[in-house]
Amino acid sequence: MNSKKSPDSKQPTDSTKASRRKFLATGAAAAALGAAKAATGQAPAAETKSLKDLIAYGERSHYVTSIRVPVDERPSPDEFGMTFHVLTPLQDTVGIITPSSLHFIGTHRGSIVPDIDPKQHRLLIHGMVDRPLEFSVDDLKHFPSVSRIHFIECLGNHSKADDKTVQETHGLTSCSEWTGVLVSTLLKECGVQKDASWVVSEGAEEVKGAGSIRLAKAMDDCIVAYGQNGEPIRPQQGFPLRLVVPGFEGMYNTKWLRRMKVTDRYYMTYNDYGHIAKDEEVAALTFQWGPKSVITFPSGGQKLPGPGVYQLTGLAWSGGGVVRRVEVSPDGGQTWKDAEIRGMVHPKAHTRFGMDWKWDGRECVLQSRCTDELGQVQPSRAELAAFFKVAPDYYKAHGVQGSDNTIQPWRVASDGSVHNAI
Amino acid sequence: MNSKKSPDSKQPTDSTKASRRKFLATGAAAAALGAAKAATGQAPAAETKSLKDLIAYGERSHYVTSIRVPVDERPSPDEFGMTFHVLTPLQDTVGIITPSSLHFIGTHRGSIVPDIDPKQHRLLIHGMVDRPLEFSVDDLKHFPSVSRIHFIECLGNHSKADDKTVQETHGLTSCSEWTGVLVSTLLKECGVQKDASWVVSEGAEEVKGAGSIRLAKAMDDCIVAYGQNGEPIRPQQGFPLRLVVPGFEGMYNTKWLRRMKVTDRYYMTYNDYGHIAKDEEVAALTFQWGPKSVITFPSGGQKLPGPGVYQLTGLAWSGGGVVRRVEVSPDGGQTWKDAEIRGMVHPKAHTRFGMDWKWDGRECVLQSRCTDELGQVQPSRAELAAFFKVAPDYYKAHGVQGSDNTIQPWRVASDGSVHNAI
Repeated sequence: MNSKKSPDSKQPTDSTKASRRKFLATGAAAAALGAAKAATGQAPAAETKSLKDLIAYGERSHYVTSIRVPVDERPSPDEFGMTFHVLTPLQDTVGIITPSSLHFIGTHRGSIVPDIDPKQHRLLIHGMVDRPLEFSVDDLKHFPSVSRIHFIECLGNHSKADDKTVQETHGLTSCSEWTGVLVSTLLKECGVQKDASWVVSEGAEEVKGAGSIRLAKAMDDCIVAYGQNGEPIRPQQGFPLRLVVPGFEGMYNTKWLRRMKVTDRYYMTYNDYGHIAKDEEVAALTFQWGPKSVITFPSGGQKLPGPGVYQLTGLAWSGGGVVRRVEVSPDGGQTWKDAEIRGMVHPKAHTRFGMDWKWDGRECVLQSRCTDELGQVQPSRAELAAFFKVAPDYYKAHGVQGSDNTIQPWRVASDGSVHNAI
Repeated sequence: MNSKKSPDSKQPTDSTKASRRKFLATGAAAAALGAAKAATGQAPAAETKSLKDLIAYGERSHYVTSIRVPVDERPSPDEFGMTFHVLTPLQDTVGIITPSSLHFIGTHRGSIVPDIDPKQHRLLIHGMVDRPLEFSVDDLKHFPSVSRIHFIECLGNHSKADDKTVQETHGLTSCSEWTGVLVSTLLKECGVQKDASWVVSEGAEEVKGAGSIRLAKAMDDCIVAYGQNGEPIRPQQGFPLRLVVPGFEGMYNTKWLRRMKVTDRYYMTYNDYGHIAKDEEVAALTFQWGPKSVITFPSGGQKLPGPGVYQLTGLAWSGGGVVRRVEVSPDGGQTWKDAEIRGMVHPKAHTRFGMDWKWDGRECVLQSRCTDELGQVQPSRAELAAFFKVAPDYYKAHGVQGSDNTIQPWRVASDGSVHNAI
């Protein structure tokens, strides 16, 4: 492995490098501590906050410029605020925690981010319960808490042929440590009645984002969360309360949660798009995310400087539980090799994978495939087409309906540039 | 459990509450979705960033005002910048991840936070190696990465009798997901020579913060980290590179890491305070943190509104590995009861515990005790005094020298106020 190969950094010329190496090899062992020339370059500070503010609450380096971007179709905020979705820069993140400031945003048509006073906010649980109850945020802190790492992914997280980067193809998924109270704890407090079978949750924003989940799911692992990555949930993620429905698509994870109604039926709601499809197979595939993965390096829009060994890396996740295996194909799916898991493995959470990958400089197609603890295997689009009995290239023209957990191919051109090969 | 008991929120009067409950019990089940009055109060926004900026990189709610504070002795920045330590508000955090903006800061006497251009920064590994090598940040990304959750705690994290809050007594510990390259990977690349036994690391700040760790520790689980909680390490935490030495006290976790020298001896460095104490027992206790824990609710400065059932919660950790057990005593150490672990358990990481605790309104002393996977048990100050053969109240007058992992007692007065009972 050539540790000096770097796609981004300015490299010294060969002769400079050689003489520097020579110095290191002959002089460094004898150098007294503190005598070596500092290798760091110092640039003028460009801080906008005062030192007092930076002591109170720190900021990232001004050299770090990774940002979220809106999805193409709805590119700019209108006069009503954010009416669009905002994508996490997955190509820049490391590990499995998404920084809260970079968590994707999915808004519910026309809503602005509500500015909620947590002291005034209440969560009402009612419907088919013996004791309808209303909870303040502080009330919720009187129940035992849980803290769990889970991804949330929007149903709209489709890779489309004109998406260029992994931020564009997959940026509507993020992963946080969520802290709150199990829904089961609260429902037991309220006393669920015998014939109840669904729970409908509603948010406080203008359009009242809502979703229906089965009572069994609510009692299993759902959380009324007040914390995200160690601090109160961010406003864009539902401050002060969000329903976290692990493994289910984003819209069920109701933000600005103000009400949960226990019912005996599915409620069709404003932001319900096709979950009661007549085709049972389609409907069944649109609650819980299947096994999914994507390579984040190398990925679309990046450029490799030349042949050599690289650290291929990416994220895998599944609504079905823990990621059991991630395979990578360097040849468009002809051969597969196991990647390494390089971090924590938690159920229904992003899981970091990586592997040494040697690029010989020839055009190739890279892709990853996730297998979860249920044995479910992430499908290719061709496999999905066969399953739904449509033409092999059907999705190329029409996109994938419902949740898209298909394999993402990246084409590495002979000039090192990387392209979406959907 | 009375879910309506809340120390912080304004409660309705009893009559209002009763009539509201009555409404809920009689009317709510019949209410159509969307018809219930919104329970949220809306306040005017007080954003300082533009909507465009908030889309790029989000912020916390303006209702969330939890901040770090400097330690008392060195309360304000001087003309040279930050010359003091800054404390994490442990009383406000949830789960185990410390938000990067609230991670404690320990600075090395007189240094400012270096403003380092990551493209220019280099890490030099030299000394008793076959191949001295210099790595850019991008070079490091050509090696396999690891992502692990670890706490970092400053040696100065002593509870003193005049410290009032858990932020003051214990705020020099924080916990992050760190991503980077194992030191062992880099040292193997350089080829460690036969007689080497120590690794001396040095930072790029003005005073060249440095520390010596045994080669065996460096090869075990140390990380040259470039990522923290999913994004590049924050400047106050060592951007762009920090040496993470899991379980060891803070100063070994060299920030702004620019150099690692492999040697055959311990180097005494500028910010080395007493690690080569003549007393071998003292010296042995000042590298690796022992088992430690603290109750964060209820804790000093907080006030309980009255008798009732509360969720006692806190953090436990150990430099010796995973937390195996946390016990809580409600009576000054006479009786102990196991707390629940309420989150992820990772080696050398903060671990969240909690339990139902019923307060009868009488004065009492609460404390927690951690046992780690090595079987090490967190000591009381009296036990520490007996071990070091000093008077039982010796530490009351003199404080604990070296690392302080002693049990933290909180006295709950009959008026509900909570006080440091060290």
